[in-house]
Amino acid sequence: MKRAICILSGGMDSATASYIAKRDGYDIVALHFCYSQRTQQRELKAFNDIADTLGAKKYVIDLGFFENIGASALVDKDIEVPTGGIAPGVPVTYVPFRNGIFLSVAAAIAEKEGAEAIFIGVVEEDSSGYPDCRKSFIESMERSINLGTRDETNIEIKTPLIDLKKEDIVTLASKMGVPLELTWSCYKESETACGVCDSCRLRLKGFKKAKLKDPIPYMIKVE
Amino acid sequence: MKRAICILSGGMDSATASYIAKRDGYDIVALHFCYSQRTQQRELKAFNDIADTLGAKKYVIDLGFFENIGASALVDKDIEVPTGGIAPGVPVTYVPFRNGIFLSVAAAIAEKEGAEAIFIGVVEEDSSGYPDCRKSFIESMERSINLGTRDETNIEIKTPLIDLKKEDIVTLASKMGVPLELTWSCYKESETACGVCDSCRLRLKGFKKAKLKDPIPYMIKVE
Repeated sequence: MKRAICILSGGMDSATASYIAKRDGYDIVALHFCYSQRTQQRELKAFNDIADTLGAKKYVIDLGFFENIGASALVDKDIEVPTGGIAPGVPVTYVPFRNGIFLSVAAAIAEKEGAEAIFIGVVEEDSSGYPDCRKSFIESMERSINLGTRDETNIEIKTPLIDLKKEDIVTLASKMGVPLELTWSCYKESETACGVCDSCRLRLKGFKKAKLKDPIPYMIKVE
Repeated sequence: MKRAICILSGGMDSATASYIAKRDGYDIVALHFCYSQRTQQRELKAFNDIADTLGAKKYVIDLGFFENIGASALVDKDIEVPTGGIAPGVPVTYVPFRNGIFLSVAAAIAEKEGAEAIFIGVVEEDSSGYPDCRKSFIESMERSINLGTRDETNIEIKTPLIDLKKEDIVTLASKMGVPLELTWSCYKESETACGVCDSCRLRLKGFKKAKLKDPIPYMIKVE
């Protein structure tokens, strides 16, 4: 059976990408990263809940060193998570080369597990503005991974959501039966999603445009 | 002042590459990885000793998860380190995509520190047979890093040793005053270098061909 490493943060996008991998007939190895992000515990719960619905083998990888690198509101508690609305440019929540590190670790696990694909739920068009979500980066990284591993290792990076808008992802996830009630997107460490960080805003906008109800509770919902 | 991240394992090659960075006028940020390798403590001592001679800022990054990935004699104690001589092909000491992970983390730190170069002491020609030491991989990885980081981030991966033979590295290091007595190359966890693992064999062959005396003690020296 063909096998895929699915990078699964516990958010809506990575959950949907993992469900696409399952639909496409892959045996799923779910991979989660703890990188001292503010929402580490809540994300880990979302990861475990979703991975269990997929019957996936699980890897939880500790990248706690991100706290020492800092330089992002997601891992440095001295930098506030913006809640005033999405601004142009690279946001302060950008974590330096995060997806590069995630994909490199995924490549090592793929080579060990004999997987032929890595699924990652990056979105380029209607996204966060992170440089490590660009298609050109992902394509180059796929090439790097295949050059830097054994000749018999061939790994494809699959980005089924890269060209979608958030509302398309909500619609698709809903049609495919992705358990959206188990997902977590908020950047804040609160028990209930804040509703006002960039990630909550993008998610809520997606549900609104898709004319569907988000099953998770929010502290505030900005219209 | 221009700044470089130098990946410094504590071995002869990475020490020489770091000294070349210093000679070329870079302010040095020395980066070491603890990845549950057998010789973790000994390597860390070598790193600290050498980085101190360079007056470098130091980062020690914990990648302990390599133990969970395994698949290499360097991190899995159930796989023996070969001592019978260098065999053709990818050796069992190959750690899946290790340099990909190292370079990705170095890229994140370079972006944070505003460094414009990453120095890595990989050797392609006269080397260990690891796929992540190939020039084609390094060139692709440089491209990936620049695509996956901020537009204003420009990072060059410098591999000053890639085309050298081990004896050339010994000669160069000796001429440049690299403190070779502080370096550690052995794959085994012994106090004294074993002299018979692939890494010790390559090093000893290098000194022999360079007609120089290796300043570190060995348990056995195979002629």
